[in-house]
Amino acid sequence: MERLRLRATGSFFRYCSNRSLFDRRLNINSVNSIHNSTSGYAHGFGKNCRDFHFFSDNHKWNVQTCFGFVRYQGETFRDSTEKGLLEKTRRFQYRGFGSLAAKVQRNPSFSTLNSDDISYFKEILGEKGVIEDEEWLATANTDWMHKYKGSSKLLLQPRSTEEVSQILKYCNSRCLAVVPQGGNTGLVGGSVPVFDEVIVNMSLMNNIISFDKVSGILVCEGGCILENLITFLDNQGFIMPLDLGAKGSCQIGGNVSTNAGGLRLVRYGSLHGNVLGLEVVLADGNVIDMLGTLRKDNTGYDLKHLFIGSEGSLGIVSKKLLMEAKRKLGEILSAFEFLDSKSLDLVLNHLDGVRNPLPPTLHKFYILIETTGSDEPYDRQKLEGFLLHAMEAGLISDGALAQDINQASSFWRIREGIPEALMKAGAVYKYDLSLPVEKMYDLVEEMRTRLSDSANVVGYGHLGDGNLHLNISTAQYDDGILTQIEPFVYEWTSKHRGSISAEHGLGLMKANEIFYSKPTATVSLMASIKKMLDPKGILNPYKVLPHSLSS
Amino acid sequence: MERLRLRATGSFFRYCSNRSLFDRRLNINSVNSIHNSTSGYAHGFGKNCRDFHFFSDNHKWNVQTCFGFVRYQGETFRDSTEKGLLEKTRRFQYRGFGSLAAKVQRNPSFSTLNSDDISYFKEILGEKGVIEDEEWLATANTDWMHKYKGSSKLLLQPRSTEEVSQILKYCNSRCLAVVPQGGNTGLVGGSVPVFDEVIVNMSLMNNIISFDKVSGILVCEGGCILENLITFLDNQGFIMPLDLGAKGSCQIGGNVSTNAGGLRLVRYGSLHGNVLGLEVVLADGNVIDMLGTLRKDNTGYDLKHLFIGSEGSLGIVSKKLLMEAKRKLGEILSAFEFLDSKSLDLVLNHLDGVRNPLPPTLHKFYILIETTGSDEPYDRQKLEGFLLHAMEAGLISDGALAQDINQASSFWRIREGIPEALMKAGAVYKYDLSLPVEKMYDLVEEMRTRLSDSANVVGYGHLGDGNLHLNISTAQYDDGILTQIEPFVYEWTSKHRGSISAEHGLGLMKANEIFYSKPTATVSLMASIKKMLDPKGILNPYKVLPHSLSS
Repeated sequence: MERLRLRATGSFFRYCSNRSLFDRRLNINSVNSIHNSTSGYAHGFGKNCRDFHFFSDNHKWNVQTCFGFVRYQGETFRDSTEKGLLEKTRRFQYRGFGSLAAKVQRNPSFSTLNSDDISYFKEILGEKGVIEDEEWLATANTDWMHKYKGSSKLLLQPRSTEEVSQILKYCNSRCLAVVPQGGNTGLVGGSVPVFDEVIVNMSLMNNIISFDKVSGILVCEGGCILENLITFLDNQGFIMPLDLGAKGSCQIGGNVSTNAGGLRLVRYGSLHGNVLGLEVVLADGNVIDMLGTLRKDNTGYDLKHLFIGSEGSLGIVSKKLLMEAKRKLGEILSAFEFLDSKSLDLVLNHLDGVRNPLPPTLHKFYILIETTGSDEPYDRQKLEGFLLHAMEAGLISDGALAQDINQASSFWRIREGIPEALMKAGAVYKYDLSLPVEKMYDLVEEMRTRLSDSANVVGYGHLGDGNLHLNISTAQYDDGILTQIEPFVYEWTSKHRGSISAEHGLGLMKANEIFYSKPTATVSLMASIKKMLDPKGILNPYKVLPHSLSS
Repeated sequence: MERLRLRATGSFFRYCSNRSLFDRRLNINSVNSIHNSTSGYAHGFGKNCRDFHFFSDNHKWNVQTCFGFVRYQGETFRDSTEKGLLEKTRRFQYRGFGSLAAKVQRNPSFSTLNSDDISYFKEILGEKGVIEDEEWLATANTDWMHKYKGSSKLLLQPRSTEEVSQILKYCNSRCLAVVPQGGNTGLVGGSVPVFDEVIVNMSLMNNIISFDKVSGILVCEGGCILENLITFLDNQGFIMPLDLGAKGSCQIGGNVSTNAGGLRLVRYGSLHGNVLGLEVVLADGNVIDMLGTLRKDNTGYDLKHLFIGSEGSLGIVSKKLLMEAKRKLGEILSAFEFLDSKSLDLVLNHLDGVRNPLPPTLHKFYILIETTGSDEPYDRQKLEGFLLHAMEAGLISDGALAQDINQASSFWRIREGIPEALMKAGAVYKYDLSLPVEKMYDLVEEMRTRLSDSANVVGYGHLGDGNLHLNISTAQYDDGILTQIEPFVYEWTSKHRGSISAEHGLGLMKANEIFYSKPTATVSLMASIKKMLDPKGILNPYKVLPHSLSS
């Protein structure tokens, strides 16, 4: 994760690029990135450093908010020496205007920190993870605007979810108040202590855990700096759906906790739409795993949204997932559906007036792509270019483009007619699953082998979302067939971390199967919310939640 | 709201278009829409009718699931008479395979319906809203697949949120179980009673309340049929971000309650991203108003997400808002920012190396548009065409297109440099507000009048999202200025149903101001959730929630 990137030129960067100096002087383990815009403004950040700003300003310079140190001003950078730099140190001027802090009383039920607490934290985090340094705390106690100032005596730096959990479990039992802190770039005093709260700083949890180029799904820790994620994805040919001015310092965990909007919201929507999953540590240390790497999952209440924008008051975001916008055709693509040849046969055999727009050669899969754009000739050329490219690459073997709206409707009729054709064919066992795209069809093939000639197994669905509609069609209903399908289908889905209900929900049918898709702690939390909102349980009873918990 | 649309031809539609027949025979007040795809398949729906299907099938016909009546089959439609239609009535064949219902026990704590209950419901809903008709109930007790069958003796049809509230308040006090029912198109047995639950049918709450073409925001009642909304928006030149096979019957309240995915998810994302607000009636009859007509609102927990996908088990969705995808440039637009001339002046005066790309004529507003597409030449032409059109229409008076990435960065530097320039100019009072787009700048002008020469009032922000950054810059901090700004700025925002924190959150600064943006019942619910998840209140104390509720 260590990386040094220098893009600007000019004498003041000689200083910046001298890493050993940084290490000694600013207690920085590594400088991850230096960003320079065309105006001569630059900032850097590292594992222990945030909001490290340089302004060139005709050789005047200004080092602001170095982590653990106070802000700096000098006349010319060129003449500065290490010694000179320190001599010119000035304390912050806290401006405190508009602050509510003066009007708030410390909650007397909170304990105050003692030496046993410090010893305990050192036990679980090691000496390095327990910061009592005054200068460091002065910065962490103060917000970016220098408007709010707390008086915390302790900053903790966990390195894992487990450590965050241990910290909170202990603080909860001791009744020690906690302020979670990311990049501390907030503007409303949410990220700094009001009094002596323990600061849980997430900077060291800055690993990118995985990125899947097929689905565009990124899994990373809460302390990752936004700009690092933007750069990482850019290098992979992807776009991060979030961008904002503070990107060089702010952390994704903080972005999620504050539901940061920023500059790309108009295009990609809010984080409620882009965050696919979260891992959150609750106040009592319980870890709630809402980390399904799926675009669609309708198994129970979508609890992650409670934590998005809750400003760290309900839990600490330790890991999260983001869905990334894809390139190529992405912006005009409005549907990306697939069906296998058995689905097509069903429709052709059971529905009148439906014809195959392609020559009757045997293809295993069919894809229906629909685009919607604002400029038809351009959008059409774009689509044709994409299809040509896909044919040349051997990805598709044949295709037909709808020439008018009627033909487009007749193509849709094939895809939309599948449920109707299945109904006409006899009894049907329907499963609506989310699976990793590359595994999607394996289940159809396994089910076909399993049931051999006793049933017609068809697969179709929303390819873009990893959503498989698995349908098993028989002449009439048969208990024996059902026992061959269930619980196998749920177990298989659970094993591949899929969802047993991508879009259909749980209802009555799958209420007891929720544990195939959701951990026990998450289901318990759902039950608590149900209990709180509907204590007598009168609303849609027997459904959604497992019967063991709902009555 | 009454509309009859016949698009198909053929003799069987003569029958369908005879409204008086429908009224008498099928108890339909109005037939809202008849949809016909190219294959000869058609269905209609009306206020009291759902899943009303015709299949042409070479003059064989089949009327399925007429509301309150059972399914129908006949040989030729042409020969059918009213009498013949009735004679051929057949009962449903319940297939019940895979059903859990048999394994579930009725919860003995629920009351059973008595004649006093019926009388009470007739008092609040009138005779017409209280349905005890056996045939009607047979259909409402059965799901679309004929897989799940309940035994409810009562179906209620409220016409307003107030009536839904009265129903639930009564049922809760009497411990009568309730199943909310929309179009009853679900596939997992979520929308039908399991035993004798009272059915609350939302079909009569089918009004479109408002649609704003500027913001693309639709407000409608929960019983609106999806296809009606699609057609309505299509006629306005807008696209509904949701489409699915059952659109002719399913209702938007059900779509939201089940977080329906469907065919456009890959383009527009899930309903968690597209539903901007909800009004929900809780089990005890309390109405939770989460109906801010704003794209961005970061004031407290975003509770609406709890209800999206909760399958009617936490509350009944009575009204909702959807954000619609806009046409014209929409698909490649990635940023749409505005700044006033005073913001530009600030940047030009306080930051070095920043220049105005336009001639120094006085313009009142500047817009920064960024597009990101997959095909640069086409996308560029599209943007140029849009700008030309806007200039011809007199919407803009001058413009500059970035020629390369460096120039693009220098444009962004102007917009992103505003906060930095404000910091350099002295003390700054920052407000981050969401407002209806057409009102956005009024506040800046009123504030300017209010403060006259004592401060420099600048406005900039995310125009596409209705997000105004109001910044008031003075040489130094002054209590007198603050009292002129607050609470005026919050009161003004509240009066125009804006949000006092579009993206910055509440933090410490605005914790006590939450009531300017959220109703008391909603804030109380937030406090209950906080209490449940963090009983000792140790996580980020003193923030987000008002101090009166959090300690």
